Amino acid sequence: MENSTGSGLKFSFARNSSYVIPGVYDLSVEDTNWVLTSSFIIFTMQTGFGMLESGCVSVKNEVNIMMKNVIDIVLGGFTYWLFGYGMSFGRGPLTNPFIAIGDFLIDPSVGDPLMGPIFAAFLFQLSFSTTATTIVSGAMAERCNFKAYCIFSFLNTAVYCIPAGWVWGEHGFLHNLGCVDIAGSGPVHLIGGSAAFASAMMLGPRMGRYDDGIDPLPLGNPVNACMGLFVLWWGWLAFNSGSTYGVSGAKWQYAARAAVITMMGSFGGGTSSVMYSMFKNDGRMDVVDLINGILGALVSITAGCFLYHAWEAIVIGIIGSLLTCLTMPLFDKMAVDDPVGASSVHGVSGIWGVIAVGLFADNPVPLTTTNGRRGLFKGGGWYLLGVQSLSVLCLCAWGVLSTFALLWMINKIVPIRMDPNEELLGADLMEHHVRHGQIGISRALSALAPLKTDLVEVKEVPKIGMNPGHENYIDAMKMAEIKLQSWRDYGEEKVREASAKKSTRKLSDLARAVPIFRRRTQTQGEISSEAPRGTFTVSQQVGESGKENPNFAWVD
Amino acid sequence: MENSTGSGLKFSFARNSSYVIPGVYDLSVEDTNWVLTSSFIIFTMQTGFGMLESGCVSVKNEVNIMMKNVIDIVLGGFTYWLFGYGMSFGRGPLTNPFIAIGDFLIDPSVGDPLMGPIFAAFLFQLSFSTTATTIVSGAMAERCNFKAYCIFSFLNTAVYCIPAGWVWGEHGFLHNLGCVDIAGSGPVHLIGGSAAFASAMMLGPRMGRYDDGIDPLPLGNPVNACMGLFVLWWGWLAFNSGSTYGVSGAKWQYAARAAVITMMGSFGGGTSSVMYSMFKNDGRMDVVDLINGILGALVSITAGCFLYHAWEAIVIGIIGSLLTCLTMPLFDKMAVDDPVGASSVHGVSGIWGVIAVGLFADNPVPLTTTNGRRGLFKGGGWYLLGVQSLSVLCLCAWGVLSTFALLWMINKIVPIRMDPNEELLGADLMEHHVRHGQIGISRALSALAPLKTDLVEVKEVPKIGMNPGHENYIDAMKMAEIKLQSWRDYGEEKVREASAKKSTRKLSDLARAVPIFRRRTQTQGEISSEAPRGTFTVSQQVGESGKENPNFAWVD
Amino acid sequence: MENSTGSGLKFSFARNSSYVIPGVYDLSVEDTNWVLTSSFIIFTMQTGFGMLESGCVSVKNEVNIMMKNVIDIVLGGFTYWLFGYGMSFGRGPLTNPFIAIGDFLIDPSVGDPLMGPIFAAFLFQLSFSTTATTIVSGAMAERCNFKAYCIFSFLNTAVYCIPAGWVWGEHGFLHNLGCVDIAGSGPVHLIGGSAAFASAMMLGPRMGRYDDGIDPLPLGNPVNACMGLFVLWWGWLAFNSGSTYGVSGAKWQYAARAAVITMMGSFGGGTSSVMYSMFKNDGRMDVVDLINGILGALVSITAGCFLYHAWEAIVIGIIGSLLTCLTMPLFDKMAVDDPVGASSVHGVSGIWGVIAVGLFADNPVPLTTTNGRRGLFKGGGWYLLGVQSLSVLCLCAWGVLSTFALLWMINKIVPIRMDPNEELLGADLMEHHVRHGQIGISRALSALAPLKTDLVEVKEVPKIGMNPGHENYIDAMKMAEIKLQSWRDYGEEKVREASAKKSTRKLSDLARAVPIFRRRTQTQGEISSEAPRGTFTVSQQVGESGKENPNFAWVD
Repeated sequence: MENSTGSGLKFSFARNSSYVIPGVYDLSVEDTNWVLTSSFIIFTMQTGFGMLESGCVSVKNEVNIMMKNVIDIVLGGFTYWLFGYGMSFGRGPLTNPFIAIGDFLIDPSVGDPLMGPIFAAFLFQLSFSTTATTIVSGAMAERCNFKAYCIFSFLNTAVYCIPAGWVWGEHGFLHNLGCVDIAGSGPVHLIGGSAAFASAMMLGPRMGRYDDGIDPLPLGNPVNACMGLFVLWWGWLAFNSGSTYGVSGAKWQYAARAAVITMMGSFGGGTSSVMYSMFKNDGRMDVVDLINGILGALVSITAGCFLYHAWEAIVIGIIGSLLTCLTMPLFDKMAVDDPVGASSVHGVSGIWGVIAVGLFADNPVPLTTTNGRRGLFKGGGWYLLGVQSLSVLCLCAWGVLSTFALLWMINKIVPIRMDPNEELLGADLMEHHVRHGQIGISRALSALAPLKTDLVEVKEVPKIGMNPGHENYIDAMKMAEIKLQSWRDYGEEKVREASAKKSTRKLSDLARAVPIFRRRTQTQGEISSEAPRGTFTVSQQVGESGKENPNFAWVD
Repeated sequence: MENSTGSGLKFSFARNSSYVIPGVYDLSVEDTNWVLTSSFIIFTMQTGFGMLESGCVSVKNEVNIMMKNVIDIVLGGFTYWLFGYGMSFGRGPLTNPFIAIGDFLIDPSVGDPLMGPIFAAFLFQLSFSTTATTIVSGAMAERCNFKAYCIFSFLNTAVYCIPAGWVWGEHGFLHNLGCVDIAGSGPVHLIGGSAAFASAMMLGPRMGRYDDGIDPLPLGNPVNACMGLFVLWWGWLAFNSGSTYGVSGAKWQYAARAAVITMMGSFGGGTSSVMYSMFKNDGRMDVVDLINGILGALVSITAGCFLYHAWEAIVIGIIGSLLTCLTMPLFDKMAVDDPVGASSVHGVSGIWGVIAVGLFADNPVPLTTTNGRRGLFKGGGWYLLGVQSLSVLCLCAWGVLSTFALLWMINKIVPIRMDPNEELLGADLMEHHVRHGQIGISRALSALAPLKTDLVEVKEVPKIGMNPGHENYIDAMKMAEIKLQSWRDYGEEKVREASAKKSTRKLSDLARAVPIFRRRTQTQGEISSEAPRGTFTVSQQVGESGKENPNFAWVD
Repeated sequence: MENSTGSGLKFSFARNSSYVIPGVYDLSVEDTNWVLTSSFIIFTMQTGFGMLESGCVSVKNEVNIMMKNVIDIVLGGFTYWLFGYGMSFGRGPLTNPFIAIGDFLIDPSVGDPLMGPIFAAFLFQLSFSTTATTIVSGAMAERCNFKAYCIFSFLNTAVYCIPAGWVWGEHGFLHNLGCVDIAGSGPVHLIGGSAAFASAMMLGPRMGRYDDGIDPLPLGNPVNACMGLFVLWWGWLAFNSGSTYGVSGAKWQYAARAAVITMMGSFGGGTSSVMYSMFKNDGRMDVVDLINGILGALVSITAGCFLYHAWEAIVIGIIGSLLTCLTMPLFDKMAVDDPVGASSVHGVSGIWGVIAVGLFADNPVPLTTTNGRRGLFKGGGWYLLGVQSLSVLCLCAWGVLSTFALLWMINKIVPIRMDPNEELLGADLMEHHVRHGQIGISRALSALAPLKTDLVEVKEVPKIGMNPGHENYIDAMKMAEIKLQSWRDYGEEKVREASAKKSTRKLSDLARAVPIFRRRTQTQGEISSEAPRGTFTVSQQVGESGKENPNFAWVD
């Protein structure tokens, strides 16, 4: 974000030349298009977060975490318009170094010469905000009350927007000290990660999480988790590249650099996390180590995404991924249960990302991104490193404390922790009436029935993926078949009796002689050859109690 | 879509200045790039539709609905080139206010100065067309014959293209009356939704759908359905923002507005559908309510996506989402079985989207989108509202009647409804030989065997996700193990007999003295410790009939 | 890729006019943006490859193949920076017609006037390289040792980069002969496909693959496979359209053409593969035929994506898709086991794609893509066809031979084939400790235990999607319930005894008189009504061995 020269021709509307365009709206047509297209791609990262988080939690909560991701966008986006954007970039008279005030409910009219830039800036910042607030959802997964989460989601915007103003707003005290964070290792990831840490600590670990040690729990759907990584990865390119905030002047050159440097960081981080995971696990590679190692590298490259050389990006990525992989078990040892590792990925690597700028940053002439400063290793001295360290302190403290305060308040209204019985049954069933098969839900329902007398409704929820309307038909046919079989047996007995009397005729001839069973006997032949199939056998075993047991059919 | 001034310099080829460029091809380089990039993103919405629909149906039809989505693009796209585009935008001498004729098989040659704009326009309209025709597939899910659907998919293009010409073609009577629909609440969604309604009604409800009341059936894969929502949501940004049809002149300013307004609509709709769903379900949030509420809001904001203020977008989104959520059970009460709610999402909210323009629309100076008119609430009087209402009537009537006629015709050639037995077994197995586990397919096969004597082939389809080639090896080892166990028992018996004779020697010493069993006994020790595992126990239970029962291994 | 006139103004930095910009860096601001945006979208194809491949293999290897896809990007991308790019486009003094040497570890500094174009070019070529190397992973699925694959992935970059230099580098002998391949039917797909063929042959078929004939094995997750097709399809638009390598001059016109022609090819290919599959399978459509038919058509249209007319694209797509569908069973007959059909899709259709240019290519004036030549059917004579055929020969030979050599070398270090026992158990369990349910893993573990004595660790891996921490609670409650039941029975017996003595009092009054059981008896009433549920029954059946059997709960 810098003032480029030659923006005088950028609006097709005549403008009063004495009017000063704020930096955030200083966008040419090309800049606006770049920012818009980037925003479109950044929003796809929500798909990535959703798939990653739902793939990481246990199956009985996978839908609930998706719902929370949707809520994050809906309520988080709504509040960003209501007050979030104004807290970061508002230009009212009360704006002070700590918080911006103004430009709430932003809504430029037709005819406003800045309509395009204002909407583009808002959309871009909105895509950042929804990303930051979604990070927390993973850390709260599997035990956070859904209604409490909705309130949290509504208010969490403020947790992000105030420090985003510190770093990116023209009023912000960190901005004015010279803090450099291009695409948000600090305001987006470190705030998200420290809020994740605070919320995971405040909610406490999932029931029984550390009963058998700190080994990670099995993922619910590792393929979806990997897909989430992929979607985040490609979205990150637009996230960082779009953070040149345009392509006019020399910005396009740095947009290209940002994209390559981002990829280089992920290559370094991926390589080191593969090696680390194989070393730690005797040659076996852990899925979460690889996913989170790459994400940690991406987080750590974000703050200075066009300020580094390629080999520096690799080094920064390696350190970022190792920090992530090493702190995940550490937090577990501290009994801070973060189901997706958001505290490590976004928090710890976010700290490193902000610090790395102070060490490695180039001065990206002619852009004013670093205010002409350079990192320690580039001969820029200690100032930038100091400002970056101060920023880390401020952001960490804010992220942890404001989240504690927010959840403490919400807990007064709605308990933030799920009822333990509901936690055992899973939020999918209890909050959304989604009943998964094959994961012990029926057994849990039966075990919890004496303790929780309001389970009548959920007991009748049909299993996911089934068509209950079809079952009556199948049942009816099955019954008809059993009836027919008994008729056939009766007929064959009669035939046998007859055959015993006149033993000169063959059994099969006799069978054919009984007209009522003839056609049936042929088709029953097929049934008989089917009968020994395991499924059928099993369902026959429970057949007697079949009437009372609508589920017996599912043992397939 | 408007004529911008200053397009004279837009082609790098010299052109006869007396040649008039039709509006649809009046694209500068920048416009073309914008339209192309938007099209690339709009096509991703097909991924969204596929995931949403396959996530909503029961598992036994999830692959079939994906196949139908693929077919929609292949056959729908092919016919769009053959005749669809020409019906909407053809400029032949027979073109009249009802239908355009000409420009079939569009294919500009190298050297055509309009090659770029023509291809860009075609691609953009193609992405709209495939979206519109895909909408119907969800409403026909789970009981529509696959071959009939292929024919429908081939011809359905005409259902969309004729009314698209009314609204967007320079010849169209609604266009010339002043109908305003920027990104297609009418031609895309209302046509798609009313065709969905007609086809759902014509096909009749799924077997047993309303036997136990009108409660929705369980989803097949709610995570995939949510993912579909996400992909559609971000695609919608390009859909609406790209519908400025360029960025030259002032269009870029409205492109930015379109994106923000689209998001604001979804925030409003999402918030209201969360509240509605929780209120209706005693604090529980229904997955489909939220998904379809957001989609309904997006549909309703589409027609005037850059004509509204932000708070108006919220209001329009709220109304759109509530209309969707309220009419879904209404249609079920009418026994119109629409498995994904397309009639409500695209049909009802589509009506509201077209009407909303007549109420809220700004005049987006300097664009000529509204021909200088404004909506009722903006002081523009009743004219625009009247035209929009007329458009709703025309589009609804066309969508319903043409779909009825088309399906009636197809039903003469191929029955549009699946055979009831095949419906019970699911289209995945019957049409694509995909056999899911855990959803009662084996039981259904066994029950239907007497009625459907041609099931021999599908009975042998191996289960999804298995490697049948491996099973022989596992079986062989299992057999060898059982055999070894009996040898070991025999050996131990001999040892016991010997030990009974000379009771001074220990049993284990004796066992070690029988060389042939020595190594085996050690490894069998592991087996023994394994033996009580449920799986093994279960498979032993059915072990005797294992030869006839290739499935016994899967009870795991 | 051609030199456009008027690029003199493209850099905002003053440059020495005598400096010659290499073609690959001759990018204006607009070109750079186009190339960057295209690259962002091309990377999404990795998501598509991952989902397609993991959807095609059996479930027990679905995570492993995703991991391999991640590794491909991480290690393949890293090596592309290390040496790959320099082998294709390096401009060192040792560069010769066979291989480029130079520009390794490319890393332009701040102030380099070509920084933007260099990074954009590198990112674009990187996205191509990762695509090409990922193709092979599918063909090696389900039986390739993971560590060997990592080494392969590291070195495979060279397999792609050398022939990419032949065709696209200014030094390349095929380039200088006039070979035309716009978006890589040859260097990307044919190299990938022939490497896939060689690696599938070298690894040998999966265990038991052809024991029951050459019918394809069931897919693991057809919905994910279809999703992968979708993601690849839309990514392909950017792949081909972005291969104009910019939008300056007349390139934007051809970018638009490339996108439409790509879609037309897929429409032709999709239509023919639907017909072929239905014809072959008596009216049933095979999922893999449709997916691979469409992909084959896309591969075959790639080389000349803006050189064809629309109807020619349809013809080329039809032939490409039929070649794919017909050669898949052919390779199976040759016992070349390619689980995803990469040899056919990318190899055979890649050959056709390169040849098709020699037959159908227009001369795309004013671009110099074909050096002014045209295809045979356009009156251009035999020269271009000859060069294209020569290119096919060179690329095929290189792809097969270099892959053979590479795998032969790697096999000396790490066996490329998995241990047979591990193959039976699946790579997900053995390499990543991901234990799927419902696919016979427990049975396989039990059968293989005598042969593989190091299975202790994996036996204890909890099942995917479960929360093992919760099970203790459920178990405890279940036990408490059983205990309570026995108390209740004892109490009722006492009551009965009492009632037998004084038969004037009712049983229920007595039950109420025993205070300790009063509350429990009521809630137990609910349990009792639950008791006949199949699940509970089943778990009771194995209840006795429950202590030793942590899995009994999962039979649900």
